[in-house]
Amino acid sequence: MELRGGGANLADNQPVIILCYPQLHENIGMVARAMLNFGLSQLRLVAPRDGWDPAEKLTNRAWAAASGADSVLDQAGLYPDLISATADLNFVYGTTPRHHDMVKTTHLLRPAMTKIQGQINSEQKVGILFGPERTGLINEDISRCDELILIPTNPAFYSLNLAQAVNVCAYEYWCLQDNLPAEKTHMGKTRPADKAEFHGFMNRLETMLEARGFFTSEEIKPGMQQNLRTAFTRQMLTEQEIRTLHGVITALVRPESR
Amino acid sequence: MELRGGGANLADNQPVIILCYPQLHENIGMVARAMLNFGLSQLRLVAPRDGWDPAEKLTNRAWAAASGADSVLDQAGLYPDLISATADLNFVYGTTPRHHDMVKTTHLLRPAMTKIQGQINSEQKVGILFGPERTGLINEDISRCDELILIPTNPAFYSLNLAQAVNVCAYEYWCLQDNLPAEKTHMGKTRPADKAEFHGFMNRLETMLEARGFFTSEEIKPGMQQNLRTAFTRQMLTEQEIRTLHGVITALVRPESR
Repeated sequence: MELRGGGANLADNQPVIILCYPQLHENIGMVARAMLNFGLSQLRLVAPRDGWDPAEKLTNRAWAAASGADSVLDQAGLYPDLISATADLNFVYGTTPRHHDMVKTTHLLRPAMTKIQGQINSEQKVGILFGPERTGLINEDISRCDELILIPTNPAFYSLNLAQAVNVCAYEYWCLQDNLPAEKTHMGKTRPADKAEFHGFMNRLETMLEARGFFTSEEIKPGMQQNLRTAFTRQMLTEQEIRTLHGVITALVRPESR
Repeated sequence: MELRGGGANLADNQPVIILCYPQLHENIGMVARAMLNFGLSQLRLVAPRDGWDPAEKLTNRAWAAASGADSVLDQAGLYPDLISATADLNFVYGTTPRHHDMVKTTHLLRPAMTKIQGQINSEQKVGILFGPERTGLINEDISRCDELILIPTNPAFYSLNLAQAVNVCAYEYWCLQDNLPAEKTHMGKTRPADKAEFHGFMNRLETMLEARGFFTSEEIKPGMQQNLRTAFTRQMLTEQEIRTLHGVITALVRPESR
């Protein structure tokens, strides 16, 4: 998968997602989908409870739940324990929705991702650990992490679904990439009206309203004109919409046809 | 549900999540869980494909998938169409993972949430629309939105699971609240070592190394000392860990007991 120009291999340029003892194949598939949605492709599985065999992909619920993110699952690494799953990594983060009773530096998710981006730019290999669905990371595995990532959540309801936890992490990492689409207003085949077109419409409208006694006195006229202009400027009309509005007032002043 | 002090009603102070024609009850439940994980509680359902009856909550897969976020589902509003579901709202956003061919202002998710926060602070009622699982929002519904929110995704694999889309939106809104936990290093019953304790350990270590011929020449000694100090300072040792390390070197210089 190639997301950036210049021939860089995306997979070498991103954190590795490591699921410790995941329980449901379906959740592994949803993790894969969330990862690929946000450009991550390196997945490692540590001792999945229900086993793991890519040869069974046609019947395994992980591939169904991945909704097309097969490449992530096909290439996922399978490891018997955390030691082997992290052997080639330089820095490992554990994720948790709470502060833990261990002497570990804990970063909020957003600044953590900025730090990870810096580590990856410095050619470190970084892993992010997620615990099993029911319990989250156990203390022994947390003790093996260099630092922790705290995903900020509602303290009254903090237990995140596994795929949701991976989802927000992958999303935050994606937001740091420089390939985000620019904010814009889609224009299709039209363009914003210019001020001459806009004033042409407003003047015509006001003239037609004037001729029909809309402005009940000269005193209130400037205020009413200003209100009308304010209402029509707020929406940034397109050239096409100005033409439509001309048609609307032309039709309105016509007598009813029956 | 009360998340803030001062008696403010959280539900009046947050965007409404509106699911248009959701297909699977399970996804509705996962949406509810993701919402409550990040403090959102107002859910509205527009014509769910498989119907909706809270009286059936014991057998409905939505409640099972919500993993305890029952309050969100119990109170979810049910509407026949988008017009009625948005009647009391002042501003409605549609969500999409792509730019659309419609003249709509599109915001990236993060700045959109800042804008929504401002609207809610100005006592506007704001809704965020999510389309059905298979297709996303249809053009007719997009045309009813005031503006669009673009969730930035991998352009090569942009289709988000419904609950994952709600998840990142709710997460971004939660990150704007001022109740995020502070970053910190948990200390438990110990505390960071002070420099006297640290230097006491380093001096003892160096003395013991010196006595055992570790520093092979006076020329290289300062460099080796510096390397040792660099290695031990990086980890910000606690007072307890310093004591442990004293025990380690005490044990190491002891002859093997068998």
